[in-house]
Amino acid sequence: MEPKGDIAVIGLAVMGQNLILNMNDHGFTVVAFNRTTSKVDDFLNNEAKGTNILGAHSLAEMVALLKKPRRVMLMVKAGSAVDDFIEQWLGVLEPGDIVIDGGNSLFQDTIRRTKYVESKGLLYIGTGVSGGEEGARRGPSIMPGGSPAAWPHVKPIFQAISAKVSDGSPCCDWVGEGGAGHYVKMTHNGIEYGDMQLICEAYQIMKDGLGMTADEMHEVFKEWNQGELESYLVEITRDILGKKDEDGQPLVDKILDTAGQKGTGKWTVISSQELGIPITLIAEAVYSRCVSALKDARVEAAKVFKPSNPKFAGDRKQWVSDIRKALYASKIISYTQGYMLMRAAAQQHGWNLNYGGIALMWRGGCIIRSVFLGEIKKAFDKNPNLTNLLLDPFFKKAIKSCARSWRKVVSAAVKKGIPAPAFSTALAFFDGLRSERLPANLLQAQRDYFGAHTYERIDKPRGEFFHTNWTGSGGRVASSTYTV
Amino acid sequence: MEPKGDIAVIGLAVMGQNLILNMNDHGFTVVAFNRTTSKVDDFLNNEAKGTNILGAHSLAEMVALLKKPRRVMLMVKAGSAVDDFIEQWLGVLEPGDIVIDGGNSLFQDTIRRTKYVESKGLLYIGTGVSGGEEGARRGPSIMPGGSPAAWPHVKPIFQAISAKVSDGSPCCDWVGEGGAGHYVKMTHNGIEYGDMQLICEAYQIMKDGLGMTADEMHEVFKEWNQGELESYLVEITRDILGKKDEDGQPLVDKILDTAGQKGTGKWTVISSQELGIPITLIAEAVYSRCVSALKDARVEAAKVFKPSNPKFAGDRKQWVSDIRKALYASKIISYTQGYMLMRAAAQQHGWNLNYGGIALMWRGGCIIRSVFLGEIKKAFDKNPNLTNLLLDPFFKKAIKSCARSWRKVVSAAVKKGIPAPAFSTALAFFDGLRSERLPANLLQAQRDYFGAHTYERIDKPRGEFFHTNWTGSGGRVASSTYTV
Repeated sequence: MEPKGDIAVIGLAVMGQNLILNMNDHGFTVVAFNRTTSKVDDFLNNEAKGTNILGAHSLAEMVALLKKPRRVMLMVKAGSAVDDFIEQWLGVLEPGDIVIDGGNSLFQDTIRRTKYVESKGLLYIGTGVSGGEEGARRGPSIMPGGSPAAWPHVKPIFQAISAKVSDGSPCCDWVGEGGAGHYVKMTHNGIEYGDMQLICEAYQIMKDGLGMTADEMHEVFKEWNQGELESYLVEITRDILGKKDEDGQPLVDKILDTAGQKGTGKWTVISSQELGIPITLIAEAVYSRCVSALKDARVEAAKVFKPSNPKFAGDRKQWVSDIRKALYASKIISYTQGYMLMRAAAQQHGWNLNYGGIALMWRGGCIIRSVFLGEIKKAFDKNPNLTNLLLDPFFKKAIKSCARSWRKVVSAAVKKGIPAPAFSTALAFFDGLRSERLPANLLQAQRDYFGAHTYERIDKPRGEFFHTNWTGSGGRVASSTYTV
Repeated sequence: MEPKGDIAVIGLAVMGQNLILNMNDHGFTVVAFNRTTSKVDDFLNNEAKGTNILGAHSLAEMVALLKKPRRVMLMVKAGSAVDDFIEQWLGVLEPGDIVIDGGNSLFQDTIRRTKYVESKGLLYIGTGVSGGEEGARRGPSIMPGGSPAAWPHVKPIFQAISAKVSDGSPCCDWVGEGGAGHYVKMTHNGIEYGDMQLICEAYQIMKDGLGMTADEMHEVFKEWNQGELESYLVEITRDILGKKDEDGQPLVDKILDTAGQKGTGKWTVISSQELGIPITLIAEAVYSRCVSALKDARVEAAKVFKPSNPKFAGDRKQWVSDIRKALYASKIISYTQGYMLMRAAAQQHGWNLNYGGIALMWRGGCIIRSVFLGEIKKAFDKNPNLTNLLLDPFFKKAIKSCARSWRKVVSAAVKKGIPAPAFSTALAFFDGLRSERLPANLLQAQRDYFGAHTYERIDKPRGEFFHTNWTGSGGRVASSTYTV
């Protein structure tokens, strides 16, 4: 009998199960497998009941059920488990078969695994999948990279199950070789950290500075979701603020204010440090989660440094409008930084990234999906070589129209003692980027003073280096081989 | 004939040469070696003329000149060169001999090298050396870690050549096992990035906000160096601002405003991300160097987003005093964050760090040396278990007395469009740390909404996790094995 399976999915946690059901909806025959095989039966007897989904209870059985070239997709926690599975599969798969990792793997791991699997004659895909449970079930954003020869074989499945934008374009396209797909997914997650932090800061300013209730803020987010901020995260924030606990009080007020940070947000910041790209907003978002986790230290510090009355003076409606503009401008900065990061990574790794295509992939299905990403898509359609999103006419105009409110909100938060690290760093970055002259001349003088590091001059060609004997003492030897 | 050499130093760039001359001054017989042996002769015939310094032209000659246990110290650029030298030395050294790396090595490399060299029966020291050219010559800060059994053998030399504080205590003591010394040096360098950035922001605010000239700021830094900001970096800033170019104009105004960032600043931020410690100020300092390097992009953006008049209204003298307080408060935050980082690293790596001792080591000799570090030493003398520098009575009072000026300066910079990312992030961190309630409750709700990540409640014990079916749809499977 001819095998019927189009693809196998391994790992039956929430993302794996929902992807399988999604594939099944689109007419693909999926083989479900899990290390703990009882989960396979549990899934077949419940969520997968009445579908064409096949269960496998061993790798051999899984392989026997698949058409060639076989497509096997891992939906397990990133890390050594992925390497373990790859090792097992290499024993049962054949040259030309395709190994797919749909977890949140570190892009360097994906670069390494692509090479390794290709060296064995098989093909590899490392792909980002975003959208959470609901996205996986109804249409996620999918960002595949790896072996280019594998793409034609997975394209029909991935593009069928992915989210679609209004004109029907799939939120899934080939990203690039090696770790490109996971890099773009990592950047997506970093931006997601930033978007969430920005919403949280707007929320805290409205709550503490304007004394607004969850119900009142529910109305604000409902309104915001009908304008330029329309997005999945604003939409769910609206819903969250409207959700009542069993006692009829807003549930959000009962939730503990400590968040974890690990994985992709952290990796995005680490990569930015390696590449020298200032993604200050994502970094502040990750650090803000760290600060939130220091609950005991905060409670102690709050006793010692009691905040005074944080209430803003003036018209509440005007303030809410100002806060919306501050959020919007900060968001533009965050995406500007994120795109700078991807451009630098592409240069470093030799990826030919399609920046407009990335905006399209993020336009639907994923956690950061928004109307805003449609504008980014347009900006890159107009100018594929746009190096700085801020310089696109649409965003230039948007920033200019928000600037006054942005400064007003950050300044008020600073004066009233309401923490707004992401709003603040976005503004400081903007002011730095539009500074023809920064104080790094003094910094270069300092480095030359204590470490003979040399400097360039504004009245001499770039690349010509000078050293000043600042103290009158000091030797004739430069620090060429030692970095202080 | 008995060998006379107390220690060999390899690498005759600026730090190596000056350390050798320093050791010679203190009565030690130093063997100088360099891969390019012509440099040995050049050194012996110039800087080392008339001293007891011995030259070696081969590893065999170097080894033959050393007393046992042999002490060989590398002063070369961090990286693979260190591994290459270690490999060569293992061929010519004997069990019990001591290999010392005095470069700015990554602490993970030092952990690895300590284990490797110990596995061969030798001892290893990885040590931070700070102070630049002048420090190396007259007394650096030295931060050694590695094999504890090596310490008694290098202690007499290191403590003799190190800087001393006013009571004669050496700015050098045993830091801890493995990579502890290099970790503390890395943190020192991260803090150095922060200190330099803070001075640069004060400079830019005075220059752009108050329209002050280099000469006027020279006077300000002269005054600041007589108060609580007294430090090496403020001192050299004073000198730099007073230095004239050949045409009689301030030299600092002629220097190009682009700074490099690599190595230890970046590593500090990466480590903080791994450990989940919010060292926001150092991160902004590193990123500010990245922004400074984007000179062409800045020139372009400056044309599009022309800053308006940045001049501050009000009394200049008052503003200068406010700026000093903003700098001081921000500096307290930076050191608070740096000490949080070292504490987390010590816990992770099992180092028993002496926090007061570290402040003492940094008190003299190194680039960040300052009166301020004496206060940190006192704080840890009073309470060795102090987990948060801000809660020490001295710093608590200092922060409180600066708070108003700090907010005033950041707020003015925000309104006038002068970038002050480090001042701003320090204040946002302070306001976050003293917030009993942060908006992470909303963030946790968002994560539970889209990823079923669960949350804790303020009315339930910690460690008890809840999931809400926010939408009314969604399944029964949690995201235990998949991180969105």
